[in-house]
Amino acid sequence: MTILISSAGESPELWRDALAANLPDETIVLSPDEDEASRIDYAVVWQQPRGILARLPGLKAIFSLGAGVDHVLSDPTLPDVPVVRIVAEDLTNRMSEYVVWRVLDHMRQGRLYREQQTAALWRDRSQPAAAAVSVGILGLGELGRDAARKLQALGFKVLGWSRTQRAIDGIETYSGRDGLTACLAASDIVVVLLPLTDETRGLIDDSFLSALKQRTPLGGPVLINAGRGGLQSDDAILSALNDGRLMEASLDVFEQEPLPASSALWAHPRVFVTPHVAASSDPVALSALIARQIVRHKAGESLVGVVDRSAGY
Amino acid sequence: MTILISSAGESPELWRDALAANLPDETIVLSPDEDEASRIDYAVVWQQPRGILARLPGLKAIFSLGAGVDHVLSDPTLPDVPVVRIVAEDLTNRMSEYVVWRVLDHMRQGRLYREQQTAALWRDRSQPAAAAVSVGILGLGELGRDAARKLQALGFKVLGWSRTQRAIDGIETYSGRDGLTACLAASDIVVVLLPLTDETRGLIDDSFLSALKQRTPLGGPVLINAGRGGLQSDDAILSALNDGRLMEASLDVFEQEPLPASSALWAHPRVFVTPHVAASSDPVALSALIARQIVRHKAGESLVGVVDRSAGY
Repeated sequence: MTILISSAGESPELWRDALAANLPDETIVLSPDEDEASRIDYAVVWQQPRGILARLPGLKAIFSLGAGVDHVLSDPTLPDVPVVRIVAEDLTNRMSEYVVWRVLDHMRQGRLYREQQTAALWRDRSQPAAAAVSVGILGLGELGRDAARKLQALGFKVLGWSRTQRAIDGIETYSGRDGLTACLAASDIVVVLLPLTDETRGLIDDSFLSALKQRTPLGGPVLINAGRGGLQSDDAILSALNDGRLMEASLDVFEQEPLPASSALWAHPRVFVTPHVAASSDPVALSALIARQIVRHKAGESLVGVVDRSAGY
Repeated sequence: MTILISSAGESPELWRDALAANLPDETIVLSPDEDEASRIDYAVVWQQPRGILARLPGLKAIFSLGAGVDHVLSDPTLPDVPVVRIVAEDLTNRMSEYVVWRVLDHMRQGRLYREQQTAALWRDRSQPAAAAVSVGILGLGELGRDAARKLQALGFKVLGWSRTQRAIDGIETYSGRDGLTACLAASDIVVVLLPLTDETRGLIDDSFLSALKQRTPLGGPVLINAGRGGLQSDDAILSALNDGRLMEASLDVFEQEPLPASSALWAHPRVFVTPHVAASSDPVALSALIARQIVRHKAGESLVGVVDRSAGY
């Protein structure tokens, strides 16, 4: 059995070594020649170069190295084999860490206290109780539901929005276009964990930002995007920050990544920038999961986490 | 019935109005004359001036405006009436918010990412999974146990130390002097939530800081003190930060408060300073609890949260 790893900018060697440790008897290739390409059964990819998967006649399945699969599906020549996303407790936990961390940093006024520290200023800033702060989570898949549970455990009021209506214990849920406007108007902090699809591309635009709740216990609305950069307009976010519609933002993803040094987001005092690390995949933990799926599939069992290509996630 | 409010630097007027809203038929005084003083039944205090409570012949109980009571007990002329601490869900929740916020900020490398943002630097920093990070909580009262539960829910490995041995589900517990050294040596992040007593005063000194675990998944040990400033030597913490025994610290409390502008802690790049706000009391929520206790006591019922004066908390 031969496995291709194609991982743009994600140290393919690390992934090869981690996968090889779990599948010691298989051939794992990074830059196959034509002969090797003809023998490839499985591809494990992150932003693979367009067209390379179409040249693998024996390909049986494609595994994404992350929870998102937009970087796989956007290849117009993608062969018609199952595309599998990672659903891993490790990845889910890391995303929830990021969400809880950022929600608390905004809610507990981290920015103000850091500014006060720089000025050696001792001043108590009042802050609401968690029960008085509503967090709206856009996207209620594995990641959104786990983050919701952990925010609830801390006492926050949690709302949620998804494409199709869902019922989740203790969470006020919304769906559809009207539901989105209602959810934004009811949320003091908005957390975006949506997949990037034709429907969600560019969602966080001027009209989205104008629909945010203006009077919040924190003094203004907060946006946290840990989904995909393609969901947002960087410029629309900057405009909303500067004209008062948006108070603060934590952004882990951007229209263009790496975020260009010229972007005004880097230096904005009310933006916290991280380099797409909210739920960084851990090659060791995730390779074991992918290896297990490959072994199961080879034995005739079904794959877990196959993407619905018509929905795009 | 007459109630005295004596609250140094904590806006006594706010507390008076909040308490009056709950006890509209009672007399509430801030600066009693001799005649009024003779009629005072209950005192609600935060760092009351030494000696003033000894001059109240009819005093029946003293309520602290916070979870800590060291500021009450340190008065050598304190009359022999029950001293009552606040045990309030609101206060406990706020403390846990602070603890979870600070643990996540250190664990997710907030400081490094803020530095990278200032330099417009896009660079992925590896970080351990929560399950690979051990958090040692010193003090396992209401506050410590609640913080432990919430950190466990996020996947952290939690250890705990207390004066007397306690058994808590899923937490490795330590006690006594030897237990403290063992707990510090096993914790990647140390969270201090101890009361200030004769036993704990100055606990965080040179030898404490030398006992911290040096090889941690975060690159070095982290100290979070949200207990009392009297537990620590500010100078010992600075020395440990500068000679490498301590990597980072979040400090909400200090030997002298407000922290003097001349303190090197303000400007230390690896210290996060907040002005004793980890669990700021909310007058509205807490006054209702104190009012309920006063009504109960007046009706002959027993008080909840009476301090053991020999233990000091």
